[in-house]
Amino acid sequence: MKAEIIAVGTELLLGQIANTNAQFLSQKLAEVGIGVYYHTVVGDNADRLYKLIQEAFTRSDLIIFSGGLGPTKDDLTKETVARAVARPLVHDEQALNRIVSYFEKRGIKMTDNNRKQALVIEGSHVLPNDHGMAPGMVIEHKGKYVMMLPGPPRELYPMFTTYGLPHLLSLIRDQYVVHSKVLRFFGIGESALEEELIDLIDGQSNPTIAPLAKEGEVTIRLTAKAKSVAEAEEMIRSVEHEINRRVGEFIYGYNDDSLESVLVRQLTERGETVAFAESITGGLVSHLVTSIPGSSAALKGSIVCYTNEVKESLLAVPQDVLASAGAVSEETARILAEQVRVRLGSTYGISITGEAGPIASEDKPVGLVYIGATDGMHTEIKTFRLSGQRPAIQLRSAKYAIFTMLERIKKGGF
Amino acid sequence: MKAEIIAVGTELLLGQIANTNAQFLSQKLAEVGIGVYYHTVVGDNADRLYKLIQEAFTRSDLIIFSGGLGPTKDDLTKETVARAVARPLVHDEQALNRIVSYFEKRGIKMTDNNRKQALVIEGSHVLPNDHGMAPGMVIEHKGKYVMMLPGPPRELYPMFTTYGLPHLLSLIRDQYVVHSKVLRFFGIGESALEEELIDLIDGQSNPTIAPLAKEGEVTIRLTAKAKSVAEAEEMIRSVEHEINRRVGEFIYGYNDDSLESVLVRQLTERGETVAFAESITGGLVSHLVTSIPGSSAALKGSIVCYTNEVKESLLAVPQDVLASAGAVSEETARILAEQVRVRLGSTYGISITGEAGPIASEDKPVGLVYIGATDGMHTEIKTFRLSGQRPAIQLRSAKYAIFTMLERIKKGGF
Repeated sequence: MKAEIIAVGTELLLGQIANTNAQFLSQKLAEVGIGVYYHTVVGDNADRLYKLIQEAFTRSDLIIFSGGLGPTKDDLTKETVARAVARPLVHDEQALNRIVSYFEKRGIKMTDNNRKQALVIEGSHVLPNDHGMAPGMVIEHKGKYVMMLPGPPRELYPMFTTYGLPHLLSLIRDQYVVHSKVLRFFGIGESALEEELIDLIDGQSNPTIAPLAKEGEVTIRLTAKAKSVAEAEEMIRSVEHEINRRVGEFIYGYNDDSLESVLVRQLTERGETVAFAESITGGLVSHLVTSIPGSSAALKGSIVCYTNEVKESLLAVPQDVLASAGAVSEETARILAEQVRVRLGSTYGISITGEAGPIASEDKPVGLVYIGATDGMHTEIKTFRLSGQRPAIQLRSAKYAIFTMLERIKKGGF
Repeated sequence: MKAEIIAVGTELLLGQIANTNAQFLSQKLAEVGIGVYYHTVVGDNADRLYKLIQEAFTRSDLIIFSGGLGPTKDDLTKETVARAVARPLVHDEQALNRIVSYFEKRGIKMTDNNRKQALVIEGSHVLPNDHGMAPGMVIEHKGKYVMMLPGPPRELYPMFTTYGLPHLLSLIRDQYVVHSKVLRFFGIGESALEEELIDLIDGQSNPTIAPLAKEGEVTIRLTAKAKSVAEAEEMIRSVEHEINRRVGEFIYGYNDDSLESVLVRQLTERGETVAFAESITGGLVSHLVTSIPGSSAALKGSIVCYTNEVKESLLAVPQDVLASAGAVSEETARILAEQVRVRLGSTYGISITGEAGPIASEDKPVGLVYIGATDGMHTEIKTFRLSGQRPAIQLRSAKYAIFTMLERIKKGGF
């Protein structure tokens, strides 16, 4: 099946936003084995859009539109597709009710153009919009499929995942379900991971095993096609078991997990807390953790000890340690971790000190990072030599700090 | 002039990356008044690419390609465009020398396919690549222009800005230069700003006045066309003067400035320092500031006082204040700002406390934020009611904290 994605919106052609909808849809389609051959962006112009639709019908089996379903006169997608497939627009009762009740609830007067949003192409399968007003649609036309989705990502993403993709799969291969699970790795590079699993990756076609690297993390997506979700899950489980046996120590989470969400969850479950002494990361670790709702149960607080003065005054690093070993040293990392734990009264203390660059402030190479971790009884210091620019070194240091804490919890302590 | 952008690369169709090159190029072209009518993404496939080039020649005056200039057999752009315009590929001496010296410097053996990167279409104007190996090209063909740029953004952005766009402008209107300046605003919404300037925006065509809102900030881009840069600058200066007269209090910087870069620069110039007590922002303010190289001269450090315990133990907020007024209160904001300044020994102290949601922890509405700022003599507390989700509230709180500090410096103190 050949698919293409057409995004409609002048704001894209002005460069005000990037076409992240096409990226999202392409990822989702790739996961279920549907190949995307073109992305096109066209402005809010009926003639150019009409021409493009005709071209798309000659070369693709599935055409997915994003944008142009709203209430204003710029929103042309529905009308233009209706013209291309020679079908009228009709009011969808359910969509109209949703829109009317939306305005009633907020006590706002509904204007006529909002009613336009409840128009759908006759004979289409309507996709409900749980996060906005314009419904989506799927139509079949001469053996081809056309899906129309709203432009705002907060509406498009859930509509496609919850309604669009399942409906599409039911149309094109109702004998199968496609189910996937993402394994999240940290502390191992993509190529090292591939090397460990190369025989599995090469040998498997169902489930497929797809690694992807991003910002120092690697994910593996396992995707199974089967007669039922239970069967697909069982197929995934057996491959996952083998992957876990080989490289399980680097798996920190699944699906939508992040290092910080897993940390908050695990500490909260155990009734434990952490505090960070952040030098090189300058607050980034704490920011990542506090971006998770409910993190106040897990994070006591942190000290951003960006200058030596603060290391000395708030975290009791002796002046002679700073003078001899330096701020970027095992000794300093050890004292920072132990002191931040004591001073903030947390179960664990983690410190991060290093050279972010571009210019090293001590006589140490840019990218040298020490992470200290303690539970009050034992303290462990890890040394890293990270490469890249300042933001990359700071982000990877922050992730290593969280991963170090997770590793300790997994291993049952220090 | 009608332009279109064609990105070549299967990784885009798989959704592994978003087409940010098209966004960047569209922005730059919009700034000089060139309209973009299509973005297309096509995979590394010679037939589909060839067909698309032919289509593009029928509808556009300027076609810009990104990607497909590399050394591997997947890289097809040059060859396919050469075929479409019926011209041979020839070695470019300068590009070849750059590639040879690149390998010599690193002591790596150069493979034959790297030599392929120095091939250019005969008669093309070559665009040097300062950040990689594959050169770019501009050719004229039957009164139309074709520009080819490398795919990696770190190569494409500077090549287009430094060489591609100036060459293009010299071809299409060599009698003019186009020059622009960005004014950066904070603390005023896009619509309020437009209202203040509506007569200027409506009345002006040269320079153009283009507002854009993003993440709580608003920018205004002033773009002038003139016979010389000096003349363009003079035209911009007089509009800027009028804007500054009306809404100058909200201008914090220009062009590539950010709130945090301006803060670091201004404090460093004055030999002053700041320290933050971060509750709701959980380290984000410090992270933003320490993302700027050289920030250690301006930021002493911070305390992430995420729990009441830490507010009490490290920042001396009395238990009865926390019990009566609460952590989210003017009183707490005042004590946090004053204490963090004293304890970290900085010139200024800034505190940020509030409710980020999704669930309020005290009996306060989500989005209520207090920012305290002190120089040790006077302390000012500002109250904000921010809307949006947790990450938006945290980010806007962080920006208001930095802006509050900048405002104080601008006004010459507290």
